[in-house]
Amino acid sequence: MSNKVNVAVVGATGAVGQEMIRQLEERQLPIARLLPLSSARSAGTTIQFNGESITVEEASPEKFAGIDIALFSAGGSVSKRLAPEAIKRGAVVIDNTSAYRMEDGVPLVVPEVNGEAAFTHNGIIANPNCSTIQMMVALKPLRDRFGLQRVIVSTYQAVSGAGYAAIEETLRQTKAVIENQPVEPKLLPVGSFPIKHQIAFNAIPQIDSFADNGYTLEEMKMVNETKKIFADQSIEVSATCVRIPVLSGHSESVYIETKEEITDLSEVFTLLSATPGIVVVDDPSSQMYPMAVHATGKREVFVGRIRQDLNHKNGLHLWIVSDNLLKGAAWNSVQIAELLLAKN
Amino acid sequence: MSNKVNVAVVGATGAVGQEMIRQLEERQLPIARLLPLSSARSAGTTIQFNGESITVEEASPEKFAGIDIALFSAGGSVSKRLAPEAIKRGAVVIDNTSAYRMEDGVPLVVPEVNGEAAFTHNGIIANPNCSTIQMMVALKPLRDRFGLQRVIVSTYQAVSGAGYAAIEETLRQTKAVIENQPVEPKLLPVGSFPIKHQIAFNAIPQIDSFADNGYTLEEMKMVNETKKIFADQSIEVSATCVRIPVLSGHSESVYIETKEEITDLSEVFTLLSATPGIVVVDDPSSQMYPMAVHATGKREVFVGRIRQDLNHKNGLHLWIVSDNLLKGAAWNSVQIAELLLAKN
Repeated sequence: MSNKVNVAVVGATGAVGQEMIRQLEERQLPIARLLPLSSARSAGTTIQFNGESITVEEASPEKFAGIDIALFSAGGSVSKRLAPEAIKRGAVVIDNTSAYRMEDGVPLVVPEVNGEAAFTHNGIIANPNCSTIQMMVALKPLRDRFGLQRVIVSTYQAVSGAGYAAIEETLRQTKAVIENQPVEPKLLPVGSFPIKHQIAFNAIPQIDSFADNGYTLEEMKMVNETKKIFADQSIEVSATCVRIPVLSGHSESVYIETKEEITDLSEVFTLLSATPGIVVVDDPSSQMYPMAVHATGKREVFVGRIRQDLNHKNGLHLWIVSDNLLKGAAWNSVQIAELLLAKN
Repeated sequence: MSNKVNVAVVGATGAVGQEMIRQLEERQLPIARLLPLSSARSAGTTIQFNGESITVEEASPEKFAGIDIALFSAGGSVSKRLAPEAIKRGAVVIDNTSAYRMEDGVPLVVPEVNGEAAFTHNGIIANPNCSTIQMMVALKPLRDRFGLQRVIVSTYQAVSGAGYAAIEETLRQTKAVIENQPVEPKLLPVGSFPIKHQIAFNAIPQIDSFADNGYTLEEMKMVNETKKIFADQSIEVSATCVRIPVLSGHSESVYIETKEEITDLSEVFTLLSATPGIVVVDDPSSQMYPMAVHATGKREVFVGRIRQDLNHKNGLHLWIVSDNLLKGAAWNSVQIAELLLAKN
């Protein structure tokens, strides 16, 4: 790579793609050329980048000629089809879909946790699932200090994780409820399935489709990605993933058991507060704790409601909140790009 | 008590009080006289009962003369002031507030779980907290069969638990967000505290005020009430209670560890399905699971997402949903009244 790089964003008109472009601009990455790519349907629209209007082009293999870094966030099937083409033309792919995450030889990277893994890539680096990333950032310093035996997590996930269409769907349904009109669910829980549920003023305990073991794929992502990122198959993880009517910002109620006993809770506060990328928000006396509406638009992972289990000295409860489109997706991808650029 | 009884409802104009009156009517309790009582502010309005308009009267000690059963749901301070007056005049009090729940000698009753405890009262029977009740109903058959070692619960609680004002507040805030107007939080998380948070499109990890141990009182209610209802101080309970923008219907992500190993998950389905008051809704193949919008207006507790922990043979995950105003409050209170009437 030269001093300045050519960057393609695949899925440039989507909720995550738009944030990727914004992060590339805000972080002032040394970009010679930004190439926004999309499906045929969205091609021809324009996006703004560093004060310029750039026309979105239809993604196809030859578009990756001359591209140094390709950020993918256009669904797993697009990544499967086009990531190999980008790599063939010399690009490093940072893929925000689940297409390659669990593949051997593909590093699954959260820069604060296992940034060094990014340098072992064979052309493709996978960005973990949004709900996994924010949890990893918070658990890393605790695992380093106390060891990590098990994780039980229940999520409160925003609809933006399912794209712009899900935000619009939620607002449309919500308006219908307020105006006493019939709610006609059209999108959630899973776009491609025939059954749809109301998300307005509801909680849907399904994200992604079901695996044979009764867990959803979203839940199994949290299980398997946690083990891969920490490079420790022995961590016992269970997850319950729930969509709630929040537009942006995932919240997580996380219980962990550490290997070593936590004898002084203040050490947990000190550790988390000292970790880059984490903001501790935890002051019951002034009713301060992380919340989705406060996390929206921010890159950090917010941690609060930090308290020991009432019965287990090595049990700890945490409330972890982050913007799922930023640290959970776009910012984590751009952060990986920054790692690559800093190395070269 | 004669064949027909005189019943007072204290807090008759509130969200729970209104449901109590509706349940008394729907269940056709043998009522000679229904006396709706309220604060001075709401007195003079009328409520409908069995086709009649009845004027709401201001609650005061002498109003309980001749009352057989007094259902209280007007806040802990009203119960503290007036329940003794009602008892003095010969009424049995069924109290839906937290005023007497943990008092020795006051039975804390979920009819499906410890109905017989109702008959040991000394004038007052306490109705547990909404989030506790629905969990108790689901865990009772499992505890009977496998024993219950520990419970870790994360709640997704509806705003109606904080009364009509919270429903109005949520709708008002939601409308403001949709119309791009500023959201001015005025009520949640706790009415009497100066700091208010946005509930529209947000998740607030605080219900009730904080105890010194970092848990909220709502969380400690789930801990302490579970032990009292099961009459077992050894059960290890931890809770994280969260308010979400749902109008009615509490959802709970519950992890339990049983004492005996669960060798066959189908036995759990059979046990739960056979328990009165429980409806199992669990069919991943057709995306069926309990949801708040489906539970609203129903008396049952809905259980789904039933699955074994991925690492612990005695670990079980459940998703438990119920109408917090009905089984969580009004219906459970009226059910206790039915128990008393059936006995006499």
